[in-house]
Order: sequence, then structure tokens, then C-alpha cells
Amino acid sequence: MYHYVKKLMYAVKVDAPDLRFGRMLLEQFGGANGELAAAMQYSVQGLNCEDAKLKDLLMDIGTEELSHLEIVGTLARMHMKDMKRTRDIAEVDPLIAIAGGGGIALCNSVGAAWTADYLKVTGEIDVDMRSNIAAEARAKIVYERLIDFCDDAGSKDALQYLMTREIAHMKAFTAALEGLGLDRFTIGKIPPTPGAMSEYVSEDRAD
Amino acid sequence: MYHYVKKLMYAVKVDAPDLRFGRMLLEQFGGANGELAAAMQYSVQGLNCEDAKLKDLLMDIGTEELSHLEIVGTLARMHMKDMKRTRDIAEVDPLIAIAGGGGIALCNSVGAAWTADYLKVTGEIDVDMRSNIAAEARAKIVYERLIDFCDDAGSKDALQYLMTREIAHMKAFTAALEGLGLDRFTIGKIPPTPGAMSEYVSEDRAD
Amino acid sequence: MYHYVKKLMYAVKVDAPDLRFGRMLLEQFGGANGELAAAMQYSVQGLNCEDAKLKDLLMDIGTEELSHLEIVGTLARMHMKDMKRTRDIAEVDPLIAIAGGGGIALCNSVGAAWTADYLKVTGEIDVDMRSNIAAEARAKIVYERLIDFCDDAGSKDALQYLMTREIAHMKAFTAALEGLGLDRFTIGKIPPTPGAMSEYVSEDRAD
Amino acid sequence: MYHYVKKLMYAVKVDAPDLRFGRMLLEQFGGANGELAAAMQYSVQGLNCEDAKLKDLLMDIGTEELSHLEIVGTLARMHMKDMKRTRDIAEVDPLIAIAGGGGIALCNSVGAAWTADYLKVTGEIDVDMRSNIAAEARAKIVYERLIDFCDDAGSKDALQYLMTREIAHMKAFTAALEGLGLDRFTIGKIPPTPGAMSEYVSEDRAD
Amino acid sequence: MYHYVKKLMYAVKVDAPDLRFGRMLLEQFGGANGELAAAMQYSVQGLNCEDAKLKDLLMDIGTEELSHLEIVGTLARMHMKDMKRTRDIAEVDPLIAIAGGGGIALCNSVGAAWTADYLKVTGEIDVDMRSNIAAEARAKIVYERLIDFCDDAGSKDALQYLMTREIAHMKAFTAALEGLGLDRFTIGKIPPTPGAMSEYVSEDRAD
Amino acid sequence: MYHYVKKLMYAVKVDAPDLRFGRMLLEQFGGANGELAAAMQYSVQGLNCEDAKLKDLLMDIGTEELSHLEIVGTLARMHMKDMKRTRDIAEVDPLIAIAGGGGIALCNSVGAAWTADYLKVTGEIDVDMRSNIAAEARAKIVYERLIDFCDDAGSKDALQYLMTREIAHMKAFTAALEGLGLDRFTIGKIPPTPGAMSEYVSEDRAD
Repeated sequence: MYHYVKKLMYAVKVDAPDLRFGRMLLEQFGGANGELAAAMQYSVQGLNCEDAKLKDLLMDIGTEELSHLEIVGTLARMHMKDMKRTRDIAEVDPLIAIAGGGGIALCNSVGAAWTADYLKVTGEIDVDMRSNIAAEARAKIVYERLIDFCDDAGSKDALQYLMTREIAHMKAFTAALEGLGLDRFTIGKIPPTPGAMSEYVSEDRAD
Repeated sequence: MYHYVKKLMYAVKVDAPDLRFGRMLLEQFGGANGELAAAMQYSVQGLNCEDAKLKDLLMDIGTEELSHLEIVGTLARMHMKDMKRTRDIAEVDPLIAIAGGGGIALCNSVGAAWTADYLKVTGEIDVDMRSNIAAEARAKIVYERLIDFCDDAGSKDALQYLMTREIAHMKAFTAALEGLGLDRFTIGKIPPTPGAMSEYVSEDRAD
Repeated sequence: MYHYVKKLMYAVKVDAPDLRFGRMLLEQFGGANGELAAAMQYSVQGLNCEDAKLKDLLMDIGTEELSHLEIVGTLARMHMKDMKRTRDIAEVDPLIAIAGGGGIALCNSVGAAWTADYLKVTGEIDVDMRSNIAAEARAKIVYERLIDFCDDAGSKDALQYLMTREIAHMKAFTAALEGLGLDRFTIGKIPPTPGAMSEYVSEDRAD
Repeated sequence: MYHYVKKLMYAVKVDAPDLRFGRMLLEQFGGANGELAAAMQYSVQGLNCEDAKLKDLLMDIGTEELSHLEIVGTLARMHMKDMKRTRDIAEVDPLIAIAGGGGIALCNSVGAAWTADYLKVTGEIDVDMRSNIAAEARAKIVYERLIDFCDDAGSKDALQYLMTREIAHMKAFTAALEGLGLDRFTIGKIPPTPGAMSEYVSEDRAD
Repeated sequence: MYHYVKKLMYAVKVDAPDLRFGRMLLEQFGGANGELAAAMQYSVQGLNCEDAKLKDLLMDIGTEELSHLEIVGTLARMHMKDMKRTRDIAEVDPLIAIAGGGGIALCNSVGAAWTADYLKVTGEIDVDMRSNIAAEARAKIVYERLIDFCDDAGSKDALQYLMTREIAHMKAFTAALEGLGLDRFTIGKIPPTPGAMSEYVSEDRAD
Repeated sequence: MYHYVKKLMYAVKVDAPDLRFGRMLLEQFGGANGELAAAMQYSVQGLNCEDAKLKDLLMDIGTEELSHLEIVGTLARMHMKDMKRTRDIAEVDPLIAIAGGGGIALCNSVGAAWTADYLKVTGEIDVDMRSNIAAEARAKIVYERLIDFCDDAGSKDALQYLMTREIAHMKAFTAALEGLGLDRFTIGKIPPTPGAMSEYVSEDRAD
């Protein structure tokens, strides 16, 4: 069960609204490695998980990602809300301007609608943890790029916070995977065929 | 900001797991009129809303829908988790059995991945309220059909609760729309052209 | 059965082709609240409808939306057809320029392909009417925004006509819903549980 | 402009409703090679076409496909409408039963929503004609398979009619392409490089 | 079985990286008529084909298209890799800049993810050949438009090569279709109904 | 550049065609964790990679996955090709039967078209390696489930081989990641904020 607290998890401030940056921010709102993708991946894994402790971990981090989704969405909205004012401004992102009236949508930086095809959920807890470690690494690098392209101090501050949390989650998922005490190349129950484990095929570089 | 409470909003119990019914339940988990669609539609509208009271309404109901998502997902999981046990059972839903190992996915009753294309968000608060009233009506009728096709008392009980809440939300959104005090055929600011308002064109029925 | 009359339902004229505005117009051609979405929503509902009078209403308005689709498509084409001429112009919308040779596609203002996921069809006539009322309200506000961003008198004139028709349809669907004589919070046959109808949960605003 | 005549283009009759066959029929309603795909492909090509005669051909056949869409949808509805009656029946197609209440949706035979990604529209009239010839060939073979799997005389009769029309359209598009008087391997204006036209690379069959 | 040779099928050189042109190039990388679409259409048809000679043709051309995919991807990457350097540059394509770090993605020129909905595969060899002839015609015209919008000599040279190969493939598929010795309007086994083959319905042009 | 060798990388044999199992196999052909997803993820990463050795690794494994795609497709086709013979058989998978004539399509086990939204490509080599390690773990577990549900000795043998190769690739990607010599929680260049690295928020379990 979720409770909504009428306060952002991390206060945000935008000194200079920047429409084009707002559009970039949508990548972490409704993009492939964004906050909804993280929230849903962990929460659905959590619903499938039969280990109470790991289920808690997944639901808790999943919930934190929802709180992040709210932060990113609030920031993006602050940058983009003038988009319905003038034609000139509307051209930056016709979808947000025309269909959204300056309001953000659940899409990525080029307006593609969010899809659950982004999620990796297998119902096998150690495999899911590996997917989550990789997901956090991806989210971290995307936040870094957003920081690199941002000129607004308030936005940078919030993004630095969000980026940091991804590393915190990456550590938590790594600890959880290690806590399972599995061999790192043992997945599932059926062992691989020894004879077919040799190196991959390669040819010499010709160019 | 969201808090996750480790307790379902409404306790669920499944006496007789029913794989095919579990599959049907996914329609309200990751389907077009399901709980995630409701949660995201209201929450994104809320992030775009500048009226504090209406924003609260949208975020609060959006959050309740997330709690419902957890209920539906938990129920569906209870019905479907044996799907990885035998071939016979796996045939009911190959996607859940093979890709999910009996774990649910964010998809509808035929395995189509959830997409934000289901959402209706316009950044115009009265229009959004109309979309929400219609959304609740749709969710209500889908729950009714699920109840009609369900033989398990525990599942029926939870579905009846969820169905009831949709009507409660429908009333809340209707009150919010009426609270705006707008003429019911006045949308936005530009008035329609009187001369073009005549009846729609129709021809006599020939068959 | 449909007949095609080789004449637009409303004559269009473009004095000053405006590529970026053409792109915006696509939102009402192949976008989520555009004319194809309206045409298909009503027509598929009509095919499912067993009440002859309501079926006629749905098919008639669905057909008018097809005629509107033709108007919007013709307008967008007039604005965009030079897109294959020079590189400079092609950059405005690479999809239309490269894949379409200046010809419009069934997509929205950012090039996302139209999808039936936009549609709301439940096979329950009063619920469908509610979805249609909301759909018309959304279409109206999108046309208003297009008018606000348009500098071309001929285009504005056609858009004003199309916008007006949405209100006319909204009235027709409202009358149809009221004609069913249903209580406005009674959906389907199973009554809600009285005890679970209380207000939605909310917490005080903290920020 | 379209007129809707309240009569099917070809009268349909279903003696023995067959839910599973109704589901198969959806392939020609909202599937990749179905009637909406044909209607939209030709109509959008028509809106882009500057040759009046070819535009008429495209709009006329596009309109006929809309009339076919109505026939296929009516047939599918007749086969599937009982789907909301009993649980047993609902299992055949949970999407139609639960989300649609027995009403058809704009999807294919496995419930995937129709998408404009199915369409081939290039804005180059002779290329579009080639795409249309191939599209009609595909539609013909799909109708043939439906006939092969159908036990109901009334349905077979309608399908035979629809299948025949695809060949009629294939002939019309072929005549239109030939009427352009182009060399059959000359596409566009830039000639291929003679030296790079040699045969495709192949190796001997090893198995 | 595939072997990868560490050399491009056609050497590429980019003298003047051009971000906006790189974005356009993606249309032939991950777009509807691009190289992956061609590679997959022919290869999947090949896997379904029971005629050894035609299967070889399909697999061989399918493989050549994979080599073309590598060429186009390499070219696009050369044009776009600076996109992660400065904010100014990043604005050209936020998806490539933010999500990809200047690395290309499997998408079209407006960032829509590639989908198998682009493919035409019917399991009927002559019908598939018709789809392939049309596909090659589409690919040819798209390359021509890219050449028209390109200022870089090295890119133009590679595109001219790729464009030429499409015509070579179009000839090969045409020869294969003709080699089947079928009447050109005979598709499948069920003959059309003679009486329903008359001309399509049309009305006089009114405008 | 790719060469196609007319021999499967691993010979396949099917003693008892099993339509329902063929459908399950499609999950590894055109599903989210299937062979095309692997092939494309590694190959696109490879095109973006500037380190020659890692690029070779990515292209080589990407190519092996294409060879696996051919094996899985061939197997699935062997299991499903009778689907066009009788109505009874066609009901197992209407999409393959009606649209494909018994021929496989690039879709997953419930007929959803493959999409590049499945891919994880960031243009940051160590992050991509993490995504690949997780991808191989997912593919391994999916093959294991297929083996568990398979009764045909020939199919099991091929699946065991394919499953083994996933572990071989997982080891190769792990070695490549370790070869980069990076701290395992250091992603990109911007360090996290120490003060925000504390544990994730959690509440006590209430149920």
C-alpha cells in the first residue's frame, strides 16, 4: 500500500526555465532507463518475489523511484510549462505544446510513449538482480549526461541527488545478489554442456 | 513523495488458484483501462496541474490506484504462480510461463505490453476531469465482467472492493468538474462558430 | 457502406505554407486525439452496438470524422509538400522528408505511428458515450491550440470549422447518454459496496 | 468527403456462430494485411497524390476497403458476441470478453492493436503502386486461409466476395502502374551505378 | 550460419560530419524501409521457405542487407558521435545525445524504435516475392532522397552503392517471381468469383 | 561484413512436431530476451564502440546470436509448419496459421511483434557490458524453461547447446568488463554526493 506525502522527496528549484532542457529531462521521466521504468521493474519483480526480505527491498526501492519520478516530472514541467504561450516556443516540442498544452506526457525526449517493453522481469530473483544492477548503471550515466547539458543550478542540484541515489540502489542490489551466495555463472538449475563452453568464434580483423 | 506500507490496502485470499482467471485479471493490471493506466493518468495530470486542491485530488487518487495495482498484481500472481510447474499448465499463457517463470508481467490479458498510449492527459483541467470520469466508468465495467467470470470467493471479494472504489473516484472527479463552475459544453476559450453547430449529417437507413 | 464524394466537406485554402505548422497539424491527423482516433472509436463502437438508433449515431459521426481526417490531411499536405525540395526544409521533419518525400504519414506531430491503443471501446453503450464526450472535449482543446499557433487565415478558418463540429458531436453524445435514462453513477449491473464508497484517502499538504 | 449508407456493401449471414473463427477474422479487421491497413494505405497515398486520376483511384479503392472493414467487423461481431455470456466462452479470447464485453476491437487475431507501422506510403506514386499490388496479394492469401478454416456457409460466401475484390484491386493497381509508362526497374531519378549491379553474393550450400 | 568479417562490405569515409544528416541516415538503419527491415523480411521468409533455391536467394540477400546495415550504422555513427560533446549539438537529437551518448540506436530518423510490424511475411513464396519487389523499390527511393540531401562526398558515394544494390535485388526478386511461372493475377488456389471482378466503384469528381 | 554459410551452426532434428511448443520457442526467436534482441543489442553497441578489441567481441558475439536466431527459427518452423493444414491445428496460434500460413513471424510466444524497445544500448562501454551480462542471464533462464517444457529429444539437444552458449557469452562479457579495470560502483565521471548515499528508505512490514 502506498501513501502519498504532499512534499517532494527532494526540493527542486528552477532559476532559468529552459524548454529544450525540459525536453531532455523527459528521457528520465518516461524514457527507457527513466524513473517509471525503474519503479515498475522493481515493483513487478517484488510482486513476483517469494522471499520476504528481497520483496521488501524491491518494493522499497520501487517506491523511491516513484518519488523520483515525481521530482523529474516536476522539474520537466517547470522547464516546459511556457510551451503553450507562443508559436515560437511551441515549435521546440509540438507534442507537448499541442497535445499537452505545455503539460508533460509519459514519454521520452523525442515523444515516444513509455512502454512496458522496457522492463526486464524474469521471475528468477538472482537474474532480476543482475538486470537491476545494469538498470541502475544505465540510469546513472543518463543523469550524468543531463547534468553535463544543464546550465541551471537548481536543476543540476536535483539531478546530482537523483544520480547519487542510483549508485546507492546499485550497491543495494549488488549486496542482495551476493547475499544469495550463488556462483556468479550459475543461473537456474540445468548445468551448461562443458564441451560447448569454449570461446566464441572470431576471425582476424581484415580492415 | 510516496511511502510504501508493507500491507495490502485490501487483504486478498485465493482459495482455488485458476490460471485462466489469473490471465484475465492481468487486464486490470497492465491493460488499457487497468490500475496502472489510472494511476499514471491521474498522477501525470496532477504534476501538470496548477490548482493546489485539484492537484491533491489527482495525486491522492493516483496513489490509491497504485495501491490497487498492488492488489490486482498480488491476486494475479496467486492465480498464476504454478504456471512454471508443468507443460500442461504452461500452455495457458506461454508468455507468463516461459518469459516470466510464472511471474506476472506488466501486460494485458493477451500479453500486450502496457503503453502510455492508453493515457489521456491534455493539460486542461476540466478536459482531464472528463477523461477521468470516463476512465472510471470503463474500469468499473471491466471489474464487473471479471466478477462475472470468477468462481473464487476470495477473488470476488477483492474485485468487488476495487469495483466500488472506481465509482467512488467517479463521484470525486464529477464533483471536481462541477466545482469548476463551467458550462458543460464550453471547452477552452475560443467559442464555436454558431452556424456550423447544426446536427450531424445522416442518411436514412437502407437495410 | 461508404461512398466517397470527390469534394472536401469543407473547402480549404492555404495562403502561406508553413512547414512547422503542417507538422503540428499532424497531431489531429494521426495523433492520440485526432480525427482517425475519433473515426475509429465511434465506428468500432457502432459495429458492436445493438441499438439501431445509437448505432446510426455512432456510424454517422464516425463517418463525419473520416471526412474531417481528409480535411486535416489535405491541409497538412499543403503545408508540408515542399519538404522534399531542399535540405534546409527537410530538417524540419526528417521522417516526412526522407521516408515520405514530403507526403504526410499516419502519425502524430512528432512522427509516432498511429495506434489503436488510443481507442476506448468497451461494448457497453453508456460507458462508450462517456468516453466519446471526453474524446470530443480533448479534440476541441487541441484544435484551439492549433488555431492559437496558426498565422494562416485559410488554415484558421478550416480549423475553426473542425473545432466547432467537435462541440456539436459532444452535444450529440451527451444527448444520447441522457436519452438512456440511467443514473449517472450507475455503471453496469453489479452495485458497489456501500461501506467502501467513502472519500478517497488524503494526507495534509506538507510543502 | 464520405457518405455513410446504412446498408452493408455485401449482405452477411452467420448460421453457426463460431467464437474461434471470429477471432481469426479479426486478422482481416485490424491485422497487418487487413481492411483498415488497406483503406489507410491507399487513402493516405491518395491525399499525397498530385495526379488527379490516380488520386481518384486511390481514394475510391480506399473507400471500398472501408466498406469491407465494416463487413468483416460485422461478421466478426456476429461470431463473437456471445463471448460475454459464460466463463467457458470467455476463455477463447480474454481481451474481447473482458475488455470488450464481447465487442470486437481494432486488433489482429491475437489481440495486438492496429498500428500505422503496417502502412507503406512513400509519396512516390509508382513505388506506392508496387506496394499496393503486393498488399492486395497478401490480403488475397489471408482471405483464402480464412475460407479454408471456415465451416459456416454464410461467412464463406462473404469472404469469397471480399477475396475476389482484392484481385480486382490488384488488377486496377497494376494497370495504373503500367499506365505510368515507366521502365520496371527505374525508380526515382538517380540511376544506379552500373558496376555495382552484378549478382548478389552467395556461397555453396554446405548442408 | 553467419560469419562476421572484420571489414565493411563497402568502405566509408566522412569528410564533414553533419549531425542532422546522421539523423536522417537512421531512417535506413532502423526505419520502416531500412536495412534491418529488409534483412529480417528476407531472412524470416527464407526460414519459412521450402524451395531450396529460393531459400538460398532469400538468405543470401538477407545477409547482404545485414552487411548494409553495418555500413549505414557506421556512417550514421561517424556523423553523430560528437553529439555528446556540447549542449548545442545535443539539441539536434536529444535521444541520441542523452540516452545514447552520441551512439546510434535501432530507431528511425525521429527516434521511433524499430518494430517487426514493418515486415511483410506471408509464408506464400510468390506473395513474399511481390512484397520484396515493393520493398526494394521503397528502399531505392529513400536512398535517393538521402543522396539529394547530402553534402558530403564520402557519404554520397556509399549511399550510391547501397542504392544501386537495391535495384540489383529488385531484379533478382523479379526474376525469382517470374521463375515460378505463375499467372500474375493468380494468388493461392481459390479462384475469384467472376461476377464480382468488375471495376471498382467511383463517383464523378465534384470539386 | 557478414557471410552466410548454408549450414546451421548446430544441426537440429525434430522427431515429434509439437505446435504448442513451437509457439513457446518463438519467445527466443522474437521475444524480449530472444536471439534477435541479443544479436541487435551487441551489434549496435559494437557499431558505437571505439575500442577495437571490445568492438570485435561485440560484433563476434552479435554474429553468433544471429546464427542462433537461425537455429531457433528453424526449430520453431519445424514444430509449426503444419499449422495451415487443419482448422483444429490452426486454433493453437491464429496469427501463425492465418497471417503466416504456418510460417513463423518475428514475434514472441503470444504474437507480439519484436521491438527495439527491448534493447539496452547506452554508448558507454562498461555500462553496456553490465547490460549484456544481465541479458545473457535472462536468456539462459528462458532456455532452461523451454527445456523443462519440451518432450522432443532433438529439440532439447539444440536448446541445451544454445543455453550453454549463453553462459559462455556471460563469461566473455564479464571478463571484458573486468578487463576495463574500473571500480565496480564507479559509472561515468561525475562522483555521487557522499551524503546522499545512505540506505534506501523502508518501513516495517505491517502484514
